[in-house]
Amino acid sequence: MGRRTPDVGALVAGARDGDPRSVARLISLVEQESPALREVAAALAPHTGRAQVLGITGPPGVGKSTTTTALIRGLRERDLRVGVLAVDPSSPFSGGALLGDRVRMGDHADDPGVFIRSMASRGHLGGLSWATPQALRVLDGAGCDVVVVETVGVGQSELEVASLADTTLVLVAPGMGDGVQAAKAGILEVADVFVVNKADREGADRTTRELRSMLTMAPPSDWRAPVVRTVASEGRGVDDVLARVEEHRAWLASSGEGDRRRRVRAAREIEAIAVGELRRRMGDVGGAGAVDALADRVVAGECDPYAAADELVGRL
Amino acid sequence: MGRRTPDVGALVAGARDGDPRSVARLISLVEQESPALREVAAALAPHTGRAQVLGITGPPGVGKSTTTTALIRGLRERDLRVGVLAVDPSSPFSGGALLGDRVRMGDHADDPGVFIRSMASRGHLGGLSWATPQALRVLDGAGCDVVVVETVGVGQSELEVASLADTTLVLVAPGMGDGVQAAKAGILEVADVFVVNKADREGADRTTRELRSMLTMAPPSDWRAPVVRTVASEGRGVDDVLARVEEHRAWLASSGEGDRRRRVRAAREIEAIAVGELRRRMGDVGGAGAVDALADRVVAGECDPYAAADELVGRL
Repeated sequence: MGRRTPDVGALVAGARDGDPRSVARLISLVEQESPALREVAAALAPHTGRAQVLGITGPPGVGKSTTTTALIRGLRERDLRVGVLAVDPSSPFSGGALLGDRVRMGDHADDPGVFIRSMASRGHLGGLSWATPQALRVLDGAGCDVVVVETVGVGQSELEVASLADTTLVLVAPGMGDGVQAAKAGILEVADVFVVNKADREGADRTTRELRSMLTMAPPSDWRAPVVRTVASEGRGVDDVLARVEEHRAWLASSGEGDRRRRVRAAREIEAIAVGELRRRMGDVGGAGAVDALADRVVAGECDPYAAADELVGRL
Repeated sequence: MGRRTPDVGALVAGARDGDPRSVARLISLVEQESPALREVAAALAPHTGRAQVLGITGPPGVGKSTTTTALIRGLRERDLRVGVLAVDPSSPFSGGALLGDRVRMGDHADDPGVFIRSMASRGHLGGLSWATPQALRVLDGAGCDVVVVETVGVGQSELEVASLADTTLVLVAPGMGDGVQAAKAGILEVADVFVVNKADREGADRTTRELRSMLTMAPPSDWRAPVVRTVASEGRGVDDVLARVEEHRAWLASSGEGDRRRRVRAAREIEAIAVGELRRRMGDVGGAGAVDALADRVVAGECDPYAAADELVGRL
């Protein structure tokens, strides 16, 4: 795009000083898979590993963005620096360019302690972009105490966000019982804290009761996901949520589960990058047509896919 | 399990003769990732590529299994040999062992022209097992004219089934408008034929109208997905569905799109197997702890994930 080579060192220094433009530029570099991506990753490495990553997921309409806004307010009152990655195609935070748009972020629009960034999602079901872990590292390296990752809870994204997060909040709302039911199996395993939002609505008691009854079926663990009731639009219950998040952070640290999650996360990230590199090489081997030529032979019944894969791997 | 080495040649010959036990055993071999898997794939290769693969997806409760049963009946009336792979955790076909259980399959339980097999799904959201393409090859090699793959339309499984199928049927039902809405973007791209099932219920006109209006937003194509109304439990509309499926088959052949889909499918399959093999080798390199040791260094901020991935790939 005719842009000059970025001065990665200066950008990382700027981000660590809290300069929002440096943070935004670094996220753009990782998101665009810039040639500087590896340099950015290397420069950030020594400064990462401090932030608590808070995943927020739930079905459309449950109030994820309103809850995120309320949580930001609460975290700022505690004088914590906050980053937000919104990977929800329907989020009011999404669709913006530099640092996302500020719709409904009134309180935080001019707050230098808050970075907000929307990320493109992958596919139509709100899957996390491959760049999300790298964007998390940017916000972590920029000194955020907490990074909130907001995704729509459709399909596999709720499992994906849980694999990135230290603490996963699953939001439900009264009258969305079917959604809870459908996602039940997945939700039980990923939720560290359940939030029944819009708890002033009819059916909140029933939803809370159903969640608690589901939880009795969960495998035993030292950590039992609490169920917290909120009316995020009025800020009600948000302090309670943050107290549970803090308890979970303490439990992660004392039980060793936090370290375990971070190691698993890093291992997956390394493996995904390595597989991507190997895929690239497979495409390069014998020109881009190598896989296609093998595919033609499989379609013709001349060889089976395993033999074709062996041939491909053999060429690496 | 102490089972003797399978005689793959005899099993493939048996399957081609229409012996259901041979078909079941071959699918078990590929599903269990038996050492004989490659031998099975090689023996089947010359006999595959004939079957039309029909994907059936839609939200829970829409009537996928009833529709599948009705379609089997119609296909059998046309003297076609039919295979069914049910990858829906909630399907009455699922959960069985050899050839699946026969619940609600009354008409076909003793019909040698019908093979039914339930497959384990991957994850909690009904994702297709990696073995599904191999099981498809078994049914194709066994001489099925049509193989129906039934999946629950939650999350990414509807996109996955479309990537396997020649023709994808997306089922909707009146009063499930929200589901249609949520999955809209994904559904539009994968559906070759829409089926409004339970069309005797209130709201069927509205659902049909909404689908047609959605379709006007689809990118232009030589093939416009038709919207067919059925009451599958009474067999109503099923002939119409089969007529559309046959039209689609003819279009796939005349437009070249059928060949293109098969080539893309084979290329993906080869790549997935190759990546799996490379992942296995990564695990083997330097013992199973290699990735974990690199992950520890990333967590400690001693190196970044890209450098760690380079190191891993370099060891291959």
